[in-house]
Amino acid sequence: MGRLEQRTSIPLYEQVMNGIRDKIESGAYQPGSQIPTEHELAEAYRVGRVTVRRAIEELAAEGYLTKQQGRGTFVNPPKLLRKVQFGTDVQSFSAACREDGMEAGSTLVARLTAPAGSELAAFLGIPEGDEVLVIERLRTADGVPVLLDRHYLHRERFAFLLGEQLDGPVSLFELLRDRAGIRPRQAPGRTIEIARANREVAAALGVPEGEPLFLMKSRFFDAEGAPIFVGWQYIVGSRFVLCA
Amino acid sequence: MGRLEQRTSIPLYEQVMNGIRDKIESGAYQPGSQIPTEHELAEAYRVGRVTVRRAIEELAAEGYLTKQQGRGTFVNPPKLLRKVQFGTDVQSFSAACREDGMEAGSTLVARLTAPAGSELAAFLGIPEGDEVLVIERLRTADGVPVLLDRHYLHRERFAFLLGEQLDGPVSLFELLRDRAGIRPRQAPGRTIEIARANREVAAALGVPEGEPLFLMKSRFFDAEGAPIFVGWQYIVGSRFVLCA
Repeated sequence: MGRLEQRTSIPLYEQVMNGIRDKIESGAYQPGSQIPTEHELAEAYRVGRVTVRRAIEELAAEGYLTKQQGRGTFVNPPKLLRKVQFGTDVQSFSAACREDGMEAGSTLVARLTAPAGSELAAFLGIPEGDEVLVIERLRTADGVPVLLDRHYLHRERFAFLLGEQLDGPVSLFELLRDRAGIRPRQAPGRTIEIARANREVAAALGVPEGEPLFLMKSRFFDAEGAPIFVGWQYIVGSRFVLCA
Repeated sequence: MGRLEQRTSIPLYEQVMNGIRDKIESGAYQPGSQIPTEHELAEAYRVGRVTVRRAIEELAAEGYLTKQQGRGTFVNPPKLLRKVQFGTDVQSFSAACREDGMEAGSTLVARLTAPAGSELAAFLGIPEGDEVLVIERLRTADGVPVLLDRHYLHRERFAFLLGEQLDGPVSLFELLRDRAGIRPRQAPGRTIEIARANREVAAALGVPEGEPLFLMKSRFFDAEGAPIFVGWQYIVGSRFVLCA
């Protein structure tokens, strides 16, 4: 890395970005509506069209706008705001949707057994390579896919899930409580990384391969403190804001 | 989005990925060391080289590995783990570095005044378009850039910062306390988004343009509860794990 020059002004395109973003956030540009043309924006901000184009591209990359070939540029629905917190709040996706007035949906994507890696095995207290149960579900808000939910469960204890109906708006946590009397509690130390959507995850979420996602990893104990499963959530960054 | 087929097995390349990631996380593959060749890995996992290549590419995208043209594939330093929490814990970057045994560094990138957008103006209680003071610093861990720290401050109250020495390992919070008797307190509701590095941010952080970053936004009050500034942090996803 070379020596940095101290900047003393904000790039023009960034000023235009801030102006447009403000109009979206204040509601002056409504979700679903078309924003003014490049030409109109260039006149309004007294900048060149290259500058406007760059501002629009960056706002599209941030998930605020969608360019539609030959039609214009449109304002995306607002991002979902999700509270990240400790404790037993296990319905937070549904709750986040409810708070935003959206309907939460769920589809079963995968149900399989697989050998546990060393980290998972260490947490579950099983030998590395022992089979765990993997359940993967796609979660939607008003029909739009926003996250892929993957649970790695202790194989013997949760074998009954292989025979359960898991498609549709089924609460895994309610199933565990009703069928097995298990009330999962989240361990402290949930982590959040950025991951890129691989082919399968991208296809399920309806995003381009390589799209950046939040990857949130949580660990769960039962009421007696025994480790029972690990949850991974791949969350579409352009559709979600986390609130810590 | 079409109807999803329920998957019943884990893709081969993902199994290889998990195997290699486990070896990195358990320390069997040490940071800085070279991993076995594609040929050797293909033999070890009894898969084709295309499968190994894909596993390595995905682990590189996740920040675990770096491919060096003509030399081989090397294990990256471990990601920094950063606790995201409420309250007055304002030294968390330096603290996170210390906990990981790394030295925190800081370089001034920008110090300028700029018109406030509507959201910022509303928070600070100033008219939209009024000037705010912007201070941007690059933070490093053992010399590697990991985040870009940008503060938008109330112009009049913090005008003295225009004349302060801010380059090098200067604590902004200590300056505020020592020079102005201000002890910033973080407001609840810190948000975390995914943003793409634009040209300037990418150059400062030494990452490719478009690289996904965590964008963490925090708001600060003084001890009397008056809004004083907003902090934005662009955090390199491949070098950081957040812990909520």
